[in-house]
Amino acid sequence: MGIVVVGTVAFDTVETPFGRGENVLGGSATYFSTSASFFTDVSLVAVVGEDFPDEHVQFLKSRDINTDGLQRIQGKTFHWSGRYGYDLNEAQTLDTQLNVLTQFRPNLPESYRDADYLFLANIDPDLQMEVLSQVRRPKMVACDTMNFWISSKPEALRRVLQMVDIVVINEGEARQFTGESNLVKAARSIISLGCKRLVVKRGEYGVLMFTADSVFAAPAYPLEEVFDPTGAGDTFAGGFMGYLASTGNLADDGIRQAIIFGSVMASFNVEDFSLNRMKFLEYREIESRFRRFKALTHFQGLPESI
Amino acid sequence: MGIVVVGTVAFDTVETPFGRGENVLGGSATYFSTSASFFTDVSLVAVVGEDFPDEHVQFLKSRDINTDGLQRIQGKTFHWSGRYGYDLNEAQTLDTQLNVLTQFRPNLPESYRDADYLFLANIDPDLQMEVLSQVRRPKMVACDTMNFWISSKPEALRRVLQMVDIVVINEGEARQFTGESNLVKAARSIISLGCKRLVVKRGEYGVLMFTADSVFAAPAYPLEEVFDPTGAGDTFAGGFMGYLASTGNLADDGIRQAIIFGSVMASFNVEDFSLNRMKFLEYREIESRFRRFKALTHFQGLPESI
Repeated sequence: MGIVVVGTVAFDTVETPFGRGENVLGGSATYFSTSASFFTDVSLVAVVGEDFPDEHVQFLKSRDINTDGLQRIQGKTFHWSGRYGYDLNEAQTLDTQLNVLTQFRPNLPESYRDADYLFLANIDPDLQMEVLSQVRRPKMVACDTMNFWISSKPEALRRVLQMVDIVVINEGEARQFTGESNLVKAARSIISLGCKRLVVKRGEYGVLMFTADSVFAAPAYPLEEVFDPTGAGDTFAGGFMGYLASTGNLADDGIRQAIIFGSVMASFNVEDFSLNRMKFLEYREIESRFRRFKALTHFQGLPESI
Repeated sequence: MGIVVVGTVAFDTVETPFGRGENVLGGSATYFSTSASFFTDVSLVAVVGEDFPDEHVQFLKSRDINTDGLQRIQGKTFHWSGRYGYDLNEAQTLDTQLNVLTQFRPNLPESYRDADYLFLANIDPDLQMEVLSQVRRPKMVACDTMNFWISSKPEALRRVLQMVDIVVINEGEARQFTGESNLVKAARSIISLGCKRLVVKRGEYGVLMFTADSVFAAPAYPLEEVFDPTGAGDTFAGGFMGYLASTGNLADDGIRQAIIFGSVMASFNVEDFSLNRMKFLEYREIESRFRRFKALTHFQGLPESI
C-alpha cells in the first residue's frame, strides 16, 4: 500500500494582507494527504473533536484518502490562529488551542501497518516515534518538525531524526536545532545523526536537498499572487512523498523529480486560502507546471572538455 | 573592444564574525572589473585620492584591466565601513566618507568610447547618465544601483533605468523602488520602464532573471565557509557581463549561462576578505564550479507527452 501520514487535522484562522479565513480546514496531515492524493493512496492518522464537521471528512474521502485512522474524541478540534505580513514568509502565531491534541494516542488500524511509505508530519516527537514503531517494514520514512519541539523536546526529536530516512525541515529550524548559522554546516550536522537526506524548505526561495556528498537546489515557482502560505510546507512534503510512492524510484534522479513535484504542489496551494486551490486542481495542471519548472531552471552545460 | 565599467574604487573597512579587514581594497568598479577580467578586456572609469597606493593600481594592471580612466585627484579616496552579523546577508553601514567621490566628473578616454559593453556600477545616477552619453554605440548596457539613490534621486535613477538593456538590482531594492512587496510584480514594473531584462540578486538565495515573458532562477552556490560577502553583487555582475562580452551571445541561452558564470565568480569572492580570493583564482576552477552548478540544479524533465 501507499503512504501513511500522522499529523494534525485542524481549524485554522488565518489573516493575510489579502483576506481572512476563519475556522477553515487546516492541519499538517490534511495538507500533506490532500497533496499526496494526487499521486498515490494515502491513509491518515490524526484526531479531531466533536465539533469537526462531516463536510471536511467528506472532502478528504473525495480525494480517496483513507480516514480509518482519523479518531474523533470528546472535546474540541485543534485550532491555530496566525497572521502574515506583506512578505508572507513567516507566520506570526496569534493563538494555539491544542484541545483534543493533548489526548491523542495514535493507534494505527491493522491495514495501515504494512505501509511502504510513512510521513511523520509536524507533531509531538513522542507521538511520531509511537507511530514509527507501529509500522512494520516501511521502505522509506520521512519526518517534519517545528521550532516548538526543537525547544521543548530536543532529545525526543533527536531520537526521531536518527530513525528516519529523510528529514524535511525549515531553514530557520535547521539552524535552530543545530546552533549553526551556516546552512551547509547545519545540514551536515543533521545528516550526521543518521538520516540519508535532508530537505531544507526556504519558503519563497525554494528548497535545498542535502545528502552526505551532494546538494540539489530547487527554486520556488515565482508567483504574482500569493494569498495564503499556510500549509505550503506540508503540501510540498505531500507532493514529494506522493510522487516517490507512485514511482517507487528512490534513486537520486527520482528523488530530485519528487522535489520538483512537491514544489509544484506548494506553488498551487498558496494561490488560495486553506485547501481551496486543491479542490479544483487537475493533474494536467501539475504536469504543466512541472514543465515550467524545467524551463525556469534550465541552462546549457559546458562541453565535456574545453 | 570589451567592457567599460564606471563605479567606485574604494577603501573598505569590514567586520564579519570571522575577522576584520581595515582599509582593504574595495569599490564596485574594482570588484566588477577584476571579476570580468577573467573573461574579457575591461576598462575602468573611477576616481581615487592621493592616498591610493600604487600597489592596488598594479593589482588591477596585473589583471590586464585598462586604468587609463582611473583619475587620481587631490583629497582622500572614498571609504566605506560596514559590519555583517552571522547571517551575512545584509551589511550594516557604519560609516561612509565620500571624499573625492564628490568631485568625480567622469571623462572617458577616447579609446573607451567605442566600447561594446558598458556597465554602470552603483554610483550617482547622474554620473551613470553622463558616462552613458559618452559611449557611442554600445551593444549592451547594464546598470546597478542601491537604496541610497532610490531614496535620494529616484527621478535621475528612473531615467537611467529607461536607457539600459539590463538592470541588476538587489531584491529589497527592487521592492523599495517599485513599492511592490511581490517580487514578480516589482519585476514587471521595472521592466515596463523599458529595459529588456531584470536581474534580481538575492544574496545566498541566488538570482532571478526576468524578461517580459520568462523567468530564470539560479541558486547561489552552497558554501560551508563564507568569510566576507562584500562585493559579491559586483563580482556577480563582472562575471555575468564578462562572459557575455567574451561570447557575444546575447540570446537567452547565452545570457542564462552568463548568469551562472556570474554566480560562480561571486561564490569564489565571498570565500575570503576583499579581493583576496581573486588573486589566486584560476580559470579551470571557474569552469569546474560551473559544472558543479549544473549538477546542483539538474533534474530530469518529463517525457514529451504522458
